[in-house]
Amino acid sequence: MSEKLYIVKIGGHIIDDEPKLSSFLTEFAGIPGKKILVHGGGKLATRVAEQLGILQHVIDGRRITDAETLRVITMVYAGYINKNIVAGLQALQCNAIGLTGADADVVLAHRRTDAAIDYGFVGDVDSINADFLNSVLAMDLCPVIAPLTHDRKGQLLNTNADTIARELARGLSALFEVVLIFSFEKNGVLLDAADDTTVISKINPGYYQELRNSGKIFAGMIPKLDNAFAALDSGVSKVIIGRAEHLSQLIAGNGGTTLTNA
Amino acid sequence: MSEKLYIVKIGGHIIDDEPKLSSFLTEFAGIPGKKILVHGGGKLATRVAEQLGILQHVIDGRRITDAETLRVITMVYAGYINKNIVAGLQALQCNAIGLTGADADVVLAHRRTDAAIDYGFVGDVDSINADFLNSVLAMDLCPVIAPLTHDRKGQLLNTNADTIARELARGLSALFEVVLIFSFEKNGVLLDAADDTTVISKINPGYYQELRNSGKIFAGMIPKLDNAFAALDSGVSKVIIGRAEHLSQLIAGNGGTTLTNA
Repeated sequence: MSEKLYIVKIGGHIIDDEPKLSSFLTEFAGIPGKKILVHGGGKLATRVAEQLGILQHVIDGRRITDAETLRVITMVYAGYINKNIVAGLQALQCNAIGLTGADADVVLAHRRTDAAIDYGFVGDVDSINADFLNSVLAMDLCPVIAPLTHDRKGQLLNTNADTIARELARGLSALFEVVLIFSFEKNGVLLDAADDTTVISKINPGYYQELRNSGKIFAGMIPKLDNAFAALDSGVSKVIIGRAEHLSQLIAGNGGTTLTNA
Repeated sequence: MSEKLYIVKIGGHIIDDEPKLSSFLTEFAGIPGKKILVHGGGKLATRVAEQLGILQHVIDGRRITDAETLRVITMVYAGYINKNIVAGLQALQCNAIGLTGADADVVLAHRRTDAAIDYGFVGDVDSINADFLNSVLAMDLCPVIAPLTHDRKGQLLNTNADTIARELARGLSALFEVVLIFSFEKNGVLLDAADDTTVISKINPGYYQELRNSGKIFAGMIPKLDNAFAALDSGVSKVIIGRAEHLSQLIAGNGGTTLTNA
């Protein structure tokens, strides 16, 4: 049986909330053994872009990453958020190392080409550097990954943090028994998005189909769940979705939504 | 004889100048064998701070790193500059990994306490993580270090890039034959600061004393030279000062100023 590896994705809303982020980091640092943290962006990038007078273009509800926006994202995601998380984990005796996909070629991607919409500098993942991450984990280091990738041609690219977490989980499942946790500001996948007590404790592919068909799943959850089932399909042992500050409970199996492939 | 390691510090003026930075990175990527790049900050941080309406406090010609300034520095140094250099080196087939002192505890520091002036979040170096850097270099990775350190208590600190380069050179000289290169926008240490043809090709401690006593050294060079001689005193094999775009010539011994301890 291979060693367990926890890959935890932390969402943007938690990153914007300092006390919640601090609780989360304490829980995360407490996970015994090997672990990787993938963080999202939060609203700070939007705020900094506004302050710098950079207009944000949104098409069909999706932000376009033009050159100026990429510059802000690189500053905020790879700089401010990533390094403050790393320093915070170091204070909790967790020897963290902050990385983007460009560092040590950890996440290679290509710029998305879409006939209908030019999303700008957005990257779709091609491969992850499992050997390097394995070496770093063997040194008892904890990688902290910012949602930026590169194309090996000098271009940084904006890539969804859920996708990066999924790709890391897939790529490392040959070496580890990977538990992938999408942690955010809700208790789990909810039957009623407005009621945090309506957590669905288990979802398998059949039930997911049923929930989708009946329109019971909040639209914003669908990409996350698609990501999760795709991870399970490629060897990830377990996916848990739940509240960031309850990380240790989620790992213990108390609370949150567990996705299974059967 | 131990293996050679080049530690190259690149100054702020080059970072602000895209064509020069690009030439430098091409030269740097071409250095065979093990190498580390340490970069300064450049004027971008000042520009971003101005755009964000953050007042810069300067006492005795030194910028005070208050909390807001530290935030900007973290964004610009660890985010924008560091990751663009890493992506640029990746495009040149140099497998770079960008780090601050907080990442993998690479540079531990403490906040400077000065009876006369509170410099804010400025760190003086306590130690470097030579074991980790040695492991990374053994993986044929090239560390790219931003001028930020941490105190292991969760605080990031602003630290002079020349000092970081010196401390890395000292700390790694037990494992490698370290050549430390301070590269910048001039041809070397000049007898006449306004005339780039007046490069002094060699300086030893006696001649340095002489040059200082006669006031022939530009005041801005003195901290750099003090740093260089301190490095030589603690086992670094050679220190070269010269033009960033001429890196391969400096290494070949053609041009620049070489400092020696005898």
